[in-house]
Amino acid sequence: MVGIIMGSTSDLPIMQDAADILKEFGIPFELTIVSAHRTPERMFEYAKTASERGLQVIIAGAGGAAHLPGMTASLTPLPVIGVPIKSSNSIDGWDSLLSIVQMPNGIPVATVAINAAKNAGILAAKILGATNPELQKKLLTYMETMKETVLEGAKKVEQSSK
Amino acid sequence: MVGIIMGSTSDLPIMQDAADILKEFGIPFELTIVSAHRTPERMFEYAKTASERGLQVIIAGAGGAAHLPGMTASLTPLPVIGVPIKSSNSIDGWDSLLSIVQMPNGIPVATVAINAAKNAGILAAKILGATNPELQKKLLTYMETMKETVLEGAKKVEQSSK
Amino acid sequence: MVGIIMGSTSDLPIMQDAADILKEFGIPFELTIVSAHRTPERMFEYAKTASERGLQVIIAGAGGAAHLPGMTASLTPLPVIGVPIKSSNSIDGWDSLLSIVQMPNGIPVATVAINAAKNAGILAAKILGATNPELQKKLLTYMETMKETVLEGAKKVEQSSK
Amino acid sequence: MVGIIMGSTSDLPIMQDAADILKEFGIPFELTIVSAHRTPERMFEYAKTASERGLQVIIAGAGGAAHLPGMTASLTPLPVIGVPIKSSNSIDGWDSLLSIVQMPNGIPVATVAINAAKNAGILAAKILGATNPELQKKLLTYMETMKETVLEGAKKVEQSSK
Amino acid sequence: MVGIIMGSTSDLPIMQDAADILKEFGIPFELTIVSAHRTPERMFEYAKTASERGLQVIIAGAGGAAHLPGMTASLTPLPVIGVPIKSSNSIDGWDSLLSIVQMPNGIPVATVAINAAKNAGILAAKILGATNPELQKKLLTYMETMKETVLEGAKKVEQSSK
Amino acid sequence: MVGIIMGSTSDLPIMQDAADILKEFGIPFELTIVSAHRTPERMFEYAKTASERGLQVIIAGAGGAAHLPGMTASLTPLPVIGVPIKSSNSIDGWDSLLSIVQMPNGIPVATVAINAAKNAGILAAKILGATNPELQKKLLTYMETMKETVLEGAKKVEQSSK
Amino acid sequence: MVGIIMGSTSDLPIMQDAADILKEFGIPFELTIVSAHRTPERMFEYAKTASERGLQVIIAGAGGAAHLPGMTASLTPLPVIGVPIKSSNSIDGWDSLLSIVQMPNGIPVATVAINAAKNAGILAAKILGATNPELQKKLLTYMETMKETVLEGAKKVEQSSK
Amino acid sequence: MVGIIMGSTSDLPIMQDAADILKEFGIPFELTIVSAHRTPERMFEYAKTASERGLQVIIAGAGGAAHLPGMTASLTPLPVIGVPIKSSNSIDGWDSLLSIVQMPNGIPVATVAINAAKNAGILAAKILGATNPELQKKLLTYMETMKETVLEGAKKVEQSSK
Repeated sequence: MVGIIMGSTSDLPIMQDAADILKEFGIPFELTIVSAHRTPERMFEYAKTASERGLQVIIAGAGGAAHLPGMTASLTPLPVIGVPIKSSNSIDGWDSLLSIVQMPNGIPVATVAINAAKNAGILAAKILGATNPELQKKLLTYMETMKETVLEGAKKVEQSSK
Repeated sequence: MVGIIMGSTSDLPIMQDAADILKEFGIPFELTIVSAHRTPERMFEYAKTASERGLQVIIAGAGGAAHLPGMTASLTPLPVIGVPIKSSNSIDGWDSLLSIVQMPNGIPVATVAINAAKNAGILAAKILGATNPELQKKLLTYMETMKETVLEGAKKVEQSSK
Repeated sequence: MVGIIMGSTSDLPIMQDAADILKEFGIPFELTIVSAHRTPERMFEYAKTASERGLQVIIAGAGGAAHLPGMTASLTPLPVIGVPIKSSNSIDGWDSLLSIVQMPNGIPVATVAINAAKNAGILAAKILGATNPELQKKLLTYMETMKETVLEGAKKVEQSSK
Repeated sequence: MVGIIMGSTSDLPIMQDAADILKEFGIPFELTIVSAHRTPERMFEYAKTASERGLQVIIAGAGGAAHLPGMTASLTPLPVIGVPIKSSNSIDGWDSLLSIVQMPNGIPVATVAINAAKNAGILAAKILGATNPELQKKLLTYMETMKETVLEGAKKVEQSSK
Repeated sequence: MVGIIMGSTSDLPIMQDAADILKEFGIPFELTIVSAHRTPERMFEYAKTASERGLQVIIAGAGGAAHLPGMTASLTPLPVIGVPIKSSNSIDGWDSLLSIVQMPNGIPVATVAINAAKNAGILAAKILGATNPELQKKLLTYMETMKETVLEGAKKVEQSSK
Repeated sequence: MVGIIMGSTSDLPIMQDAADILKEFGIPFELTIVSAHRTPERMFEYAKTASERGLQVIIAGAGGAAHLPGMTASLTPLPVIGVPIKSSNSIDGWDSLLSIVQMPNGIPVATVAINAAKNAGILAAKILGATNPELQKKLLTYMETMKETVLEGAKKVEQSSK
Repeated sequence: MVGIIMGSTSDLPIMQDAADILKEFGIPFELTIVSAHRTPERMFEYAKTASERGLQVIIAGAGGAAHLPGMTASLTPLPVIGVPIKSSNSIDGWDSLLSIVQMPNGIPVATVAINAAKNAGILAAKILGATNPELQKKLLTYMETMKETVLEGAKKVEQSSK
Repeated sequence: MVGIIMGSTSDLPIMQDAADILKEFGIPFELTIVSAHRTPERMFEYAKTASERGLQVIIAGAGGAAHLPGMTASLTPLPVIGVPIKSSNSIDGWDSLLSIVQMPNGIPVATVAINAAKNAGILAAKILGATNPELQKKLLTYMETMKETVLEGAKKVEQSSK
């Protein structure tokens, strides 16, 4: 079970990608809004009880001075995946990226690319797949499908450029 | 009364400057270590009770993905001054600066320059002085002293460059 | 009483946010244009007489090589809040941010996020609230309202993602 | 079982931290040199056979145009943790960070802070702990120990600043 | 014979410029899609056999954490020209540029400007021209034409500004 | 007559280069300390009276949030040359550079490279030489000397590399 | 007499501002296209003969790897003003700015803000005004007019915000 | 035959690496000092006659506002390899890199990593090898040697980490 959280409803169009890909992999998830700065107690509660509520991985997206992924990671033994969001009040995503990835010793956040909520979902699948051969197979199939798409594109491009 | 907090004892050489200048202004302060990531509950407790314990301003220094100033600001109605620290594990201070200053709407942090704990102390004095004419006078005297130092330097330089 | 100044009328759409939130908190303010580079004498006059005219906090917004906040801070014992503006002639706001926040020892500017005039207003309220329990209560209520908004958003998101 | 790889023996002083912390958690690991650019076939072989050889997580460190973590991730369904190394020929670590974290859709790398091999090790433990309550307990103990260290530091600092 | 490859069909509008200029110079080329991350085996095959298939120069375009140019360079003795692409998921092209140009000792990539596929084509012509006087003449003619265009523009501007 | 000013005596080791090269060109100058932030009135006085006191060009060096060059330019019709100084409290000189060069419309500062006080002196000579053929000749001689130095270096290098 | 040059006709919309303001000051100028890279001989000729043709100041605008201002400065004793242009193929103007301002010792370029051709024109006026009291008076009048515009804006803003 | 040029004798310690690796490959070269800014005529002469003097590739190293590689490329049909040098007066190499790589359409420079003169030499070998099977074999041997070095390092590391 994966928990997907984000700082604001305005982050939903980005973070929905994480939910969609998890659905594709058949991995159950819950999705909600938890703001580090506007609902700090809720964040504490969410992170502290995450493991006992059955969560195994948490995906947290935030923009600007993005504290949600790091603070969540400080409150749970579960792996936390951080998605830096290039929101309207961020400097091209630089602030979001640095305030998520540059965590101090002891409290890592597994950071993915700016706005890469889909990759956060895939990383969650890879994390759960680390001890689940069934899921690893699904991931291999997914990788195979990506390859097929590239090969089809290659064919078209090769023909049209002749 | 000003509260000075920092994420780690390794930040003390920088943050001591805030304490020293407050002493110079005769402003009482307390100083301790509060880590957003290693002691999140302590941070909650510290920030939540700050006002009732008599604090009026909080100065928080942190480096890297620096969450202490912003998280403290989310837990108290008091003004929080953030000092971005250029620690060994920060990228020249860029990460510290951006993860402190780029706070979302609703939760400002009064950010000073990188490593500028002395300025954090002076800003705390200016904040308390906003409603305290006595303190404003002290600040004017301080500004006068800075001017004198420059004028003396100017004299020396002018003479030696003749 | 808070003074809100900015370098140009083109900064007004951003800086109006500071005025609006101060109105919401019932804090009196004055708002005008003061350009460090086009009206340096006016800036001197404004800053030098700010305290005696009853101002307690100054909010100054500027873009590009933004000198207004720092120069104002050098001329008054009052706390000055700087708003880096991402104007059309700034490099994504980097120049505005750095030329406001990186002040030398002795003359701090309380810098908020790029374009964050609303946060400048809230910070002014927090500064005045440092010695005003009534205002602190208003700020706590404001924080409570932000929390409610997040919780409502969370409910909607949770239901629609089921 | 965790595989730790790096592009060059000169990365060992940094990457050893990952091995040390895994030892502390009692997690078996293997450590070797695999260069994406100097031994591309070896990298292919390593990544392709990683799962069947019993690896569950791979930690890959590299500097400059750092392709090892991303290329490894493209060849295995296992989660890959990337450590951006600030080597002598990197631009303050910016190139290492961006060429590891900014992976395209489909191939995430779980990126940690620059030079943060210790955090890579802890993240590997959290990943394995996602489905291992025993390991989660160890992580909680580790978090508790970090807290104790901070509290001790806090005590000392509080006493000496009185 | 020049090989033009790119990570995705979405890079084609940019990379087509390389093909067009090569056509102009009468240099034969082939163009296709090869993804370092989605089709690593294809990339290996492509690069490993490039020389024996008659390729003399390879132009590789990629965006974000752009590994295609560098990985191709590690698998062939042929010169590889890298085109950093400012794709929608890159940070203004910084990530693409740094992950292509900052290659470690031993495996150079001849990097051109961001999105400069046309220049990549011209560079390929210059490379083949290094040992081909005929082609050098064509390049001199091309340089002459560029000069003419500037001189015509100059004339128009001079007249209209009088 | 050229006026050389800087924000602090600690800038003297850098700014002395401007004085030295002016001496070499036989151009009279005065040198002193004027701090925009610590002695704003002195700066006003200095800039306002510069022309009537016989100054023709002003060279101003400053670091961090460097306001001295721009503020001086706002107070005088004379050309002002700005030297961004990479002081200990600047971020690698980025803040100094941006807060000097990114001046708004109407108030240009002639900015030279970071720490390039020598070039500021040469630029002052070029400015005065714009209407002074004698000085232009000296500048041509200076350019000739630079050429000679390169040619001598070239000879040595060519011989030792044979 | 001022010479205005730029690398391409596409730079004209920006560089026209320099011409317009010089017209306003009654300073004669010539304007044309000179490309450092496409017409290097023309650039040599232009710069080498600039002084004898009666030019006193040169304004050079260029974008990307902008070599025109610096190369021109290396070929004439006249002061050269550089305008970094944020062209479509520049990285937000960073490349243009750095490749103009960061000139080596001996060959300064008087750099103005990104796209600030108007300021380049004003700086040319200030340079010519350094030895021309008449022109200085015009500049003072210009400064006065800027002040008036700000004061009028201030009045309007003050009334509407009451 | 390869021409190696650099802007100053102070660049020699870096640029010597290019000469050394060319020697290793048995490729003849000449090495000298050519400054774009201090000896522009010499640069013109050097580049204009390069092809007829028998040069086939030019390697040009420069720091700060680095114009030598790009200007040389504008004067010859030969391929020019640019080495951005992180000299004492560059901003961490950013200025050198951008002013070399960001060349406009029509005049490419084959840019390698910051300070990577060795890679410039290898790239020259790859360029000459594009039409020289003998040289390609040497390059394959070189690649093989790099692989051996990594494998030896790997063995040592594996044994010592057991």
